[in-house]
Amino acid sequence: MFSKFQNHITSRFPFLEDKKLFLAVSGGLDSMVLLHLLQQLPYEIAVLHCNFQLRGLESFGDQSFIQNYCDQNEIPIFTTQFDTEAFAKDYKLSTQVAARELRYSWFYELLETENFDYILTAHHADDNLETFIINLTRGTGLDGLIGIPEENDRIIRPLLPFSRDEIMEYAQENNIEWREDSSNASNKYLRNKIRHDLVPMLKEINPNFLNAFQKTQSYLQESQVMVEDASIMIYQQVAKEVGDDIHFDLNQLKKLPNYKSYLYQWLNEFGFLAWNDIYDLVDSQSGKQVLSAEFRLLKNRDTLILSPISEISEKEEFEIHEGDQDVNFPLKLRLCQVGDITIDSNKAIFVDAEKIQFPLILRKWNEGDVFHPFGMQGKSKKVSKLFKDEKLSLIEKEKIWILCSDNQIVWVIGIRQDERFKIENTTNRILKIELQ
Amino acid sequence: MFSKFQNHITSRFPFLEDKKLFLAVSGGLDSMVLLHLLQQLPYEIAVLHCNFQLRGLESFGDQSFIQNYCDQNEIPIFTTQFDTEAFAKDYKLSTQVAARELRYSWFYELLETENFDYILTAHHADDNLETFIINLTRGTGLDGLIGIPEENDRIIRPLLPFSRDEIMEYAQENNIEWREDSSNASNKYLRNKIRHDLVPMLKEINPNFLNAFQKTQSYLQESQVMVEDASIMIYQQVAKEVGDDIHFDLNQLKKLPNYKSYLYQWLNEFGFLAWNDIYDLVDSQSGKQVLSAEFRLLKNRDTLILSPISEISEKEEFEIHEGDQDVNFPLKLRLCQVGDITIDSNKAIFVDAEKIQFPLILRKWNEGDVFHPFGMQGKSKKVSKLFKDEKLSLIEKEKIWILCSDNQIVWVIGIRQDERFKIENTTNRILKIELQ
Repeated sequence: MFSKFQNHITSRFPFLEDKKLFLAVSGGLDSMVLLHLLQQLPYEIAVLHCNFQLRGLESFGDQSFIQNYCDQNEIPIFTTQFDTEAFAKDYKLSTQVAARELRYSWFYELLETENFDYILTAHHADDNLETFIINLTRGTGLDGLIGIPEENDRIIRPLLPFSRDEIMEYAQENNIEWREDSSNASNKYLRNKIRHDLVPMLKEINPNFLNAFQKTQSYLQESQVMVEDASIMIYQQVAKEVGDDIHFDLNQLKKLPNYKSYLYQWLNEFGFLAWNDIYDLVDSQSGKQVLSAEFRLLKNRDTLILSPISEISEKEEFEIHEGDQDVNFPLKLRLCQVGDITIDSNKAIFVDAEKIQFPLILRKWNEGDVFHPFGMQGKSKKVSKLFKDEKLSLIEKEKIWILCSDNQIVWVIGIRQDERFKIENTTNRILKIELQ
Repeated sequence: MFSKFQNHITSRFPFLEDKKLFLAVSGGLDSMVLLHLLQQLPYEIAVLHCNFQLRGLESFGDQSFIQNYCDQNEIPIFTTQFDTEAFAKDYKLSTQVAARELRYSWFYELLETENFDYILTAHHADDNLETFIINLTRGTGLDGLIGIPEENDRIIRPLLPFSRDEIMEYAQENNIEWREDSSNASNKYLRNKIRHDLVPMLKEINPNFLNAFQKTQSYLQESQVMVEDASIMIYQQVAKEVGDDIHFDLNQLKKLPNYKSYLYQWLNEFGFLAWNDIYDLVDSQSGKQVLSAEFRLLKNRDTLILSPISEISEKEEFEIHEGDQDVNFPLKLRLCQVGDITIDSNKAIFVDAEKIQFPLILRKWNEGDVFHPFGMQGKSKKVSKLFKDEKLSLIEKEKIWILCSDNQIVWVIGIRQDERFKIENTTNRILKIELQ
């Protein structure tokens, strides 16, 4: 005779059969019940326990409690200890977020190294409700209200339809032992206030509240998927991926009365915070930009250009020595001696090998750079003027590399060759330099 | 010196200048404050008061309170009385919904007849919060959480950013009198429980709760607009409007993992309730259907067809008399004598006028109908067989009309003419019957 929990697990997740399952077990009520339930099901299980070292000796007490339980019940167990506070400090995270990062990255690592299939956690309906209310009190968007899903990626939460009361009842009926978390009474003031005062009041207003709430969350999850659908469809109409960059067509975008919602949806994951500055960018003059830690959003005429901030400083130089055939970093260049001469637009140049002086230098362009553009009868021109004529955007300009021979520009790479190194009637050896 | 309320009104709604404004005034705290605020602004105002007759003498007390106030302050006032309970009973509505229906339809009527521009109501931030919580306790979707907007159509709610406490403070500072609604203490148990117990607890958790909540609602409103965007974009890909019907292409629709969300979004407004039956329809056999009070959703091969349920019974007949030139109901037909004979596909037939016996009868087809299809050398055929050969859907079949002369079918309208009435060498007078 299986319990309603076990019937739920086998019917809702039939694909678990024959799979290897990790159970995330803290030692508290919920995870000890999950462990007990799974012990009676025909799955191959192992326990994962993280010691976050946040409650001193008590944390180690939890660890040995679970270790003993697993030893007695012959369940394989993996444990680890984290210096959670130090990690949180290093990465400027809240303790809670740090613990989650550490936990899940360890979980996923073990899935790979131990060749397991899924991780089961003991989250239940009241967890989702409490998180909903916490986010609500702080102000949140749809994503703060939809709750943790029963199943995503390789994490499964089989107790999510059940309330804390139901889990407690099972624990008592089956004489399950667990460790009480002392922070329940102190640290977690907010969650406890919600658990002990607010939620009972909601359940008093509607005794069936938890069910109604689960319906609400599933409707909100549906809405969230539709928001993502809209975001993708509009993105396809408005955005163009150009190399590592994304170009957003402002003429198209501004047709939408709610274009700010879409910008937020698209740019959120790139670490931007100054949303009002971003919204202002839409109507600002060309050349203005907003930065996140790793990305830049640039207004360029009728386009917003999102691009990763280059990690190569503008001062760096790279040498190319005689006989080098392939340069792979920072650009892929190929140099070779050739007979047949056909210029492949901006991808390759042919130069008189005897005019070249090695090592060639590969560097970013500078404001003062001057060269003799091919086809201009030896007249010189500022590189910056060339860019202006070619109508390059700030981002495009920053990406341009210069190839030099003895301080003279040989090639504004991808744009224009220098007249001085071109092949002539007198040329004996030709060097082809090709951008790949 | 204007109050913060008045500053908000003039800056948030600058377009109100020179407009004629109705104020919806119940006589309670919120609306008496709104009235007081608007009296000091340079707008042309008039008061609207509905007596819903839900609290006996007290309701009339409210009415005369406002009447006196307006008389003393020389403010034009319009009042009306509703038998709300009777209306609710007739239309099977809750008292609350009935009152809202009555109120807003009267408001909109007066906007037209009195030539006013906007209606201002006194909803405030706590109203939105209380509604949010009520809907949450019952289970709801995104639309139940987004709240009433500050401005929609011709209704403006200028107090929405402010809390009940702020409004109370203004009332006390300005010695404003109002009528206490006795139902506050009795009928409205739920709203009061939320107001007096639950909301204070949320404000205790975060003293800035109401602000955070307003942010939440504005994020949710943005999400709701994006849900509508997605709904419209997918509709354009999947749906085709054919006359009064909408055809949903199931092959397209089923490519979406969340197609049920979209069906709900599209069909919700047509009064359907049996959602599981509708979702089942997608994979059911051709010919199955789900009905709402006024609409039918039919599975027809790879299509779901939404159509209004016809109001014309299948028994009804319509007569056409000799000399009639135009028939306008239930179809538009034109009859005329012609010389030039060209058959315009299925839109018109030419018959030998002397073979016709008036009155012609226009009726829906019956299961037993038999006729002699044009071009089949006088062989007879069941009309139902013709429909089958033409692969008509159930809905298309139900829309077919039959034109008869002396119990003989002259035309299965729009589909096939009868051989017996066709024009021949011997024809003297031709009658053209044209579908318009």
